[in-house]
Amino acid sequence: MRWTRSLIPTLKEEPAEAEAVSHKLMVRAGLVRQLAAGIYITLPLGQRVLDKINAIIREEMNRIGGQEITMPVLHPAELWQQTGRWTTIGEEMFRLHDRGKRPMCLGMTHEEVVAWLAAHEIRSYRDLPQIWYQVQTKLRDEARPKSGVLRTREFVMKDSYSLDRDEAGLKQNYELHKEAYCRIFTRCGLTFHVVESDPGMMGGAVAHEFMAPSEAGEDEIALCDRCSYSANVELAVSRPLYPVFPHWDLEEIATPGAGTIEEVCRFLHIDPALTIKSLLLMTHDGPLLALLRGDQRLHEKKLARVAGEARPAHRDEILTHLGAGAGSIGPVGVKLPIIADESLREGRYTAGANKDGFHLRGVEPGIHFQPRWADIHHVSNGDRCPHCEGSLRIERVIEVGNIFRLGTKYSVPMKALYLNEAGEECPIVMGSYGIGVARIAAAAVEQRHDDLGIIWPSALAPFQLHLLPVNMRDQKTVELAEALYAGLQLEGIETLYDDRDERAGVKFKDADLLGLPLRITVGTRAIREGVVDLKERISGKEVQVPLSEAVSKARALLSRPTD
Amino acid sequence: MRWTRSLIPTLKEEPAEAEAVSHKLMVRAGLVRQLAAGIYITLPLGQRVLDKINAIIREEMNRIGGQEITMPVLHPAELWQQTGRWTTIGEEMFRLHDRGKRPMCLGMTHEEVVAWLAAHEIRSYRDLPQIWYQVQTKLRDEARPKSGVLRTREFVMKDSYSLDRDEAGLKQNYELHKEAYCRIFTRCGLTFHVVESDPGMMGGAVAHEFMAPSEAGEDEIALCDRCSYSANVELAVSRPLYPVFPHWDLEEIATPGAGTIEEVCRFLHIDPALTIKSLLLMTHDGPLLALLRGDQRLHEKKLARVAGEARPAHRDEILTHLGAGAGSIGPVGVKLPIIADESLREGRYTAGANKDGFHLRGVEPGIHFQPRWADIHHVSNGDRCPHCEGSLRIERVIEVGNIFRLGTKYSVPMKALYLNEAGEECPIVMGSYGIGVARIAAAAVEQRHDDLGIIWPSALAPFQLHLLPVNMRDQKTVELAEALYAGLQLEGIETLYDDRDERAGVKFKDADLLGLPLRITVGTRAIREGVVDLKERISGKEVQVPLSEAVSKARALLSRPTD
Repeated sequence: MRWTRSLIPTLKEEPAEAEAVSHKLMVRAGLVRQLAAGIYITLPLGQRVLDKINAIIREEMNRIGGQEITMPVLHPAELWQQTGRWTTIGEEMFRLHDRGKRPMCLGMTHEEVVAWLAAHEIRSYRDLPQIWYQVQTKLRDEARPKSGVLRTREFVMKDSYSLDRDEAGLKQNYELHKEAYCRIFTRCGLTFHVVESDPGMMGGAVAHEFMAPSEAGEDEIALCDRCSYSANVELAVSRPLYPVFPHWDLEEIATPGAGTIEEVCRFLHIDPALTIKSLLLMTHDGPLLALLRGDQRLHEKKLARVAGEARPAHRDEILTHLGAGAGSIGPVGVKLPIIADESLREGRYTAGANKDGFHLRGVEPGIHFQPRWADIHHVSNGDRCPHCEGSLRIERVIEVGNIFRLGTKYSVPMKALYLNEAGEECPIVMGSYGIGVARIAAAAVEQRHDDLGIIWPSALAPFQLHLLPVNMRDQKTVELAEALYAGLQLEGIETLYDDRDERAGVKFKDADLLGLPLRITVGTRAIREGVVDLKERISGKEVQVPLSEAVSKARALLSRPTD
Repeated sequence: MRWTRSLIPTLKEEPAEAEAVSHKLMVRAGLVRQLAAGIYITLPLGQRVLDKINAIIREEMNRIGGQEITMPVLHPAELWQQTGRWTTIGEEMFRLHDRGKRPMCLGMTHEEVVAWLAAHEIRSYRDLPQIWYQVQTKLRDEARPKSGVLRTREFVMKDSYSLDRDEAGLKQNYELHKEAYCRIFTRCGLTFHVVESDPGMMGGAVAHEFMAPSEAGEDEIALCDRCSYSANVELAVSRPLYPVFPHWDLEEIATPGAGTIEEVCRFLHIDPALTIKSLLLMTHDGPLLALLRGDQRLHEKKLARVAGEARPAHRDEILTHLGAGAGSIGPVGVKLPIIADESLREGRYTAGANKDGFHLRGVEPGIHFQPRWADIHHVSNGDRCPHCEGSLRIERVIEVGNIFRLGTKYSVPMKALYLNEAGEECPIVMGSYGIGVARIAAAAVEQRHDDLGIIWPSALAPFQLHLLPVNMRDQKTVELAEALYAGLQLEGIETLYDDRDERAGVKFKDADLLGLPLRITVGTRAIREGVVDLKERISGKEVQVPLSEAVSKARALLSRPTD
């Protein structure tokens, strides 16, 4: 491809609003442009990257028996009303009316359509199993689209759906997808973890996420340094390291002026792990006292799973229900429902006395108050693994894929049934599997870049080779470059030919920014000595090669199995 | 592909609502399913057909220097407000609000987005020319979606856009597109015509359509049997065959009870070509009398181009303005504006006298009344060509592609400018080019089918070969079929293997319905004599081939250039 015939609008400056490295580099390298908040245009180089990712995805989906279909972007509301998601999903769903005033929505995901199709086309157990997939535009009205292509309102997703007779079949298709996804992300050159996750709005019992470590990620995962335990922090559990508990008897002590855990600990010269953090929360069912160890943080999503959505109580609500300020509340003697984190099952603690300026020392959970136990704390770096003696570390990650065992959540309301061998109608057992195509590209950029620009893995690079004649005003240089370009094309090497009449500095900077695996520079030595420079982007290694050997040497370097 | 692992829901019965052959066959062959009015799911076989079409399109677009990009489905209203199309386009545009109450719409076409992108990224004449294209979902809220995939509310379109410095550049890119489109439709196995067309809502001066003849089409074109003249009837002009005009003097004659042209002609024993058909129409600017020759029909779109949108006048409006009933009105003595069709420039006619029960004979247009002349008649079969002495024939066609020379219609309001060599800001000159991907498939089915089903051209067939073992309960048959399937796959022949345990009749019927180019039947002779039947779908020719030669014979038949 000749640069002068292409749209590759590189930028010297970082886009003002960009925070994530991938955002900055993808805009600067001319891969994408933002048309409106969270709505992007994919430019030619970006398109080539996405095409390569999609080709890998399709190969691996076909390998596990997936059949590609295309479902519509525009859905009639009825489908979503049947499963109840028309009401359970809020503003994230784009809704509209057609000219006949019929309510419709834009597809955020396609479980409803798949179940509709299965209800119409699957008749008997002999029609199962099936895997249907599509590479299709999804629309979600994100509250805060950000970070370039990591969270957008319109994006291309590969979504697939498995249809099975029973849980055993689902388990098998789920494993096939897990393996296919691992191959896909590996082939795309990503470092990633497979972690347990919360099914969320998808529903279903089991779910996993594929997480690519990156500071730009919006998720956190916990990983054991010893065993294979790994989970989204929304789900991760950890065992506390117990402190040495002093032999306190239950006793009220004055803590004048000490409201926060830190102040109480400083005042009493004790470790925060010896205190109980009490939080009054307001739920749909009324007030609720949530207890954590003083050194832990509440995980709101974990709490929501056991107690529903909750908000912190206001100052006056705390006073009304517990008779003291927020800094002095505690569980003893309280008539409200109490949820205590699992880590409080052992030990004796200091907790608020529900009396301003006083705390109780020697409080024994289960003895001095009776809570409901649940895991509601936020896993922290260094916590003990729930499965072994290893310790957990927290990593920030980008979610590049997710898989869900849905079961019959969608097939029952949509009446997606099949006849089994005995002639009985049974609901089809479904799984749902997603990959964010542009997120793979962004994650690759996050994981593979340096100060100068992107370092594409071969499999994703928009072109394999960057042909850079230093001076396009020199006739001889142009002749040599043109000949090389022809030779590279004959050899089938995808080449970006920077035929612009630009200063050498601009061209070198752009080459580093674009980050193609290999660069051939045609400079003055090409004319004087007949050699060109061949440079690997990833290692920075540069070698001089006779012009006549440049193409074959490039082919040899590109054929190596590394990255 | 094994049939039992695929979703190929063939139907014996025709879908009740289907009229077009392509609609019936595409549903029956399991290529598509309708989710809602004008909204379709593309099933695996349909997807394979569309993938093949898209691959051909991409090859030809790349060949003329097109660069693939992806623009969004969701557009902010501002873009469309800038060009004015937010208001000029009516209910066809799907409109919605995002969670921030900002007005948005779904992309019907992408001139606005392209002009926005050009305004941001094109700086100088050195950045031009450019061709950008995408294969992307479009949404149009059609008033009457129908005919299967021929007119849907959501569809995939290849749309491309050329950006040039001047009209000369545009003309060149327009010609490149015309040639590329001809190659695309030819490679897809279509019979088609390239005709002049009305730019319509796209605007611009010159436009052509690519029309595939089919009874299911919604358009009509006029073709000269002698020269290359061809045009959409919305635009086509024709020269009338003049009758022999009698030497009538102007005279009022009684025509009691004769209102329609037919009644008047019967009463006076004259040819309809000797009469003037007068129509009173109501426009935004008031009443207008439109005149046609008695044997011609008014073309409403042609009239609208010269006089704006118009409706037929009501009975009382006719009486008020002309003093007679609809059957007796005419142009002589009338004070209203008159538009007369070009074919009335010569001759003497009989026309209404604006007096119930009377006509005028010997009316000479230009003498007895002064009209504005315009081409407003509907071209008919047998009319004379405007360019030669040939005669025109009318064909019903499917529009599979269209191309528009837009000029600066979008670049001016969107401020898509470039700096020329003299450093002056000039508007970019644009062209716009579209292909309906699913329409190609439907047109191919319309043009290539028989009573039994589809007859795919090789280039579009979802698979090249249909492997049909007659009896899957016979162990030996299965062994031979499996071996053949393995052999065909090794040879790289795309094979659909009908491994269903179904009656032979069902399998043969389905094979004819699906219409793959070649079929291999593994029947009892395969076991007894070691031969299989190899049948071409298009010719119906069947040959017996030894098992050992079946694969190479299939390869040979499929490699022939004919399809």
